[in-house]
Amino acid sequence: MTSSTARSAVSIEREVPETERPHTFLRESDDKEELSTSSVRARFEKMIRDAQDSVCQAIEAVDGGGKFKEDVWSRPGGGGGISRVLQDGAVWEKAGVNVSVVYGVMPPEAYRAAKAAAATDQKAGPIPFFAAGISSVLHPKNPFAPTLHFNYRYFETDAPKDTPGAPRQWWFGGGTDLTPAYIFEEDVKHFHSIQKKACDKFDPTFYPRFKKWCDDYFYIKHRNERRGLGGIFFDDLNDYDQEMLLSFATECANSVVPAYIPIIEKRKDMSFTEQNKAWQQLRRGRYVEFNLVYDRGTTFGLKTGGRIESILVSLPLSARWEYDHKPEEGSEEWKLLDACINPKEWI
Amino acid sequence: MTSSTARSAVSIEREVPETERPHTFLRESDDKEELSTSSVRARFEKMIRDAQDSVCQAIEAVDGGGKFKEDVWSRPGGGGGISRVLQDGAVWEKAGVNVSVVYGVMPPEAYRAAKAAAATDQKAGPIPFFAAGISSVLHPKNPFAPTLHFNYRYFETDAPKDTPGAPRQWWFGGGTDLTPAYIFEEDVKHFHSIQKKACDKFDPTFYPRFKKWCDDYFYIKHRNERRGLGGIFFDDLNDYDQEMLLSFATECANSVVPAYIPIIEKRKDMSFTEQNKAWQQLRRGRYVEFNLVYDRGTTFGLKTGGRIESILVSLPLSARWEYDHKPEEGSEEWKLLDACINPKEWI
Repeated sequence: MTSSTARSAVSIEREVPETERPHTFLRESDDKEELSTSSVRARFEKMIRDAQDSVCQAIEAVDGGGKFKEDVWSRPGGGGGISRVLQDGAVWEKAGVNVSVVYGVMPPEAYRAAKAAAATDQKAGPIPFFAAGISSVLHPKNPFAPTLHFNYRYFETDAPKDTPGAPRQWWFGGGTDLTPAYIFEEDVKHFHSIQKKACDKFDPTFYPRFKKWCDDYFYIKHRNERRGLGGIFFDDLNDYDQEMLLSFATECANSVVPAYIPIIEKRKDMSFTEQNKAWQQLRRGRYVEFNLVYDRGTTFGLKTGGRIESILVSLPLSARWEYDHKPEEGSEEWKLLDACINPKEWI
Repeated sequence: MTSSTARSAVSIEREVPETERPHTFLRESDDKEELSTSSVRARFEKMIRDAQDSVCQAIEAVDGGGKFKEDVWSRPGGGGGISRVLQDGAVWEKAGVNVSVVYGVMPPEAYRAAKAAAATDQKAGPIPFFAAGISSVLHPKNPFAPTLHFNYRYFETDAPKDTPGAPRQWWFGGGTDLTPAYIFEEDVKHFHSIQKKACDKFDPTFYPRFKKWCDDYFYIKHRNERRGLGGIFFDDLNDYDQEMLLSFATECANSVVPAYIPIIEKRKDMSFTEQNKAWQQLRRGRYVEFNLVYDRGTTFGLKTGGRIESILVSLPLSARWEYDHKPEEGSEEWKLLDACINPKEWI
């Protein structure tokens, strides 16, 4: 079948567990040739590892009970990652914050999956690539406390072997988005305001563009609804100064805690009914549908043989599918669904 | 993005609800031109509607509490279906038994998705098709009672318009497979024996071929494990007499009740622990992964804009994903997983 053919053509080595976090997951050649501390690869790796530390600290502090379990892994030829998962905490039922640095060779069809824009400038042969990213999904227990997702990544294809000195292809991608089961307007406004503030520091066109991109991206086509209430999303970004985009991604990652934690503080202890919980579970079902059917990071990860437990940590602890469930018109559940069908301007 | 482009190219009309079951979902032209009672289309439709009735009757009788809710729908240009769902019964938490008759025009890439074999003999243009099938997933509550899936379908592409009288492409597909969370050898042997008996009436090579095909098909590549303990599966079957294959599909559909119901009778009232239930929920998570990522019927349905609630009724009422869960070696959970990783010959 076509899918398994595509998958078997990807050459990523099997990961192996490590007992300690290495100083860097970069290949030695990268480390030397490009002066580890100054290359974009190296600085991006440092940024995502710092962001992982600060987000995990903030989560543990609010949770009070749960602690992150860490898995470090590497691949023999270079690359690796740090997966941190807090499961069954006091506030979060599942919180995953992963960083990874991946070297691989992908077939052209996987390249197209990773990079949405038509890659007409690419040769048809297998393409060596480097990808580093931080990826996180935080699923709270309380149905009034929203799920957060963020992901920032840097991608490079190797310089063509037959033209030494030719520039690599590189691009940045990422975003932060909010998925509540119930709408509290002040929460959604707060969340979007922080995203806008981060964007506005760099380009006034970023927030409106990336807000719309987010609404368009997290679209569950077969349901004609979005996964949640959006935020920002961008991909294949390379038509700006590389340093500027590195700073922008850093600013976005640093905005996660101020955008999300205040909302959780307000909602984590609200009382709720069984009906509220059941609705949250149905929305989690939609989360699963989006991630397994449409999400480029997930489908790319499954195709390239990435570390499955790290990729699928984005799935909620539990989810529910009821046949033909329709919330009563005008209800709080209906309002959420309506906002997922007709995206709003929150600020 | 490529996926939405592919989807929007498919021209299936939106379904509309009906208050009554029609005598047939075939287009009038089919009905007349081919003498409704004798064409393969018409006889296949009758067969799947009879099977739907008899399976639903058997399920309701064993369940004792739940009743199937029926939704009838049609499409303006012909085709339609009957969805029957029993939710929150005494024995089954979700049982869906659907029949559908679909006329459509698909782009070549969807055609390839529906028919695994390389379609080198096809023109590249859009292809009018007819598809009829019965599809059912039965998820019991008790973690010792297995989930059953079966699906039998008949597919035709229209005769080429420029060569009147030229033969249509047609094929049969289907299968019945068992997905328990715990192994009871006598149950699995019973189930496979009934499948073999149905196969052996037609061709002694069918059972071994279709058993292996089933193990290969329900493979969750990214987990390196199968969804369950298999059964039979076949697709694109057209290199036998068409009448023989119609009889074979009928025999298979008629074997569902004797293969499955005796197992449920034995397991539905067994006592179980919270741990048993949690394991069942984890296996249901795998069920969701298979159906959304790999299942051709589901991905084809999502692509062609089929009736979403009917397509996704296959998903369990609830499912669970724990990070890096590994059953203890030698445990009953481990034995199930082992049999999903290394398919066995049960009879």
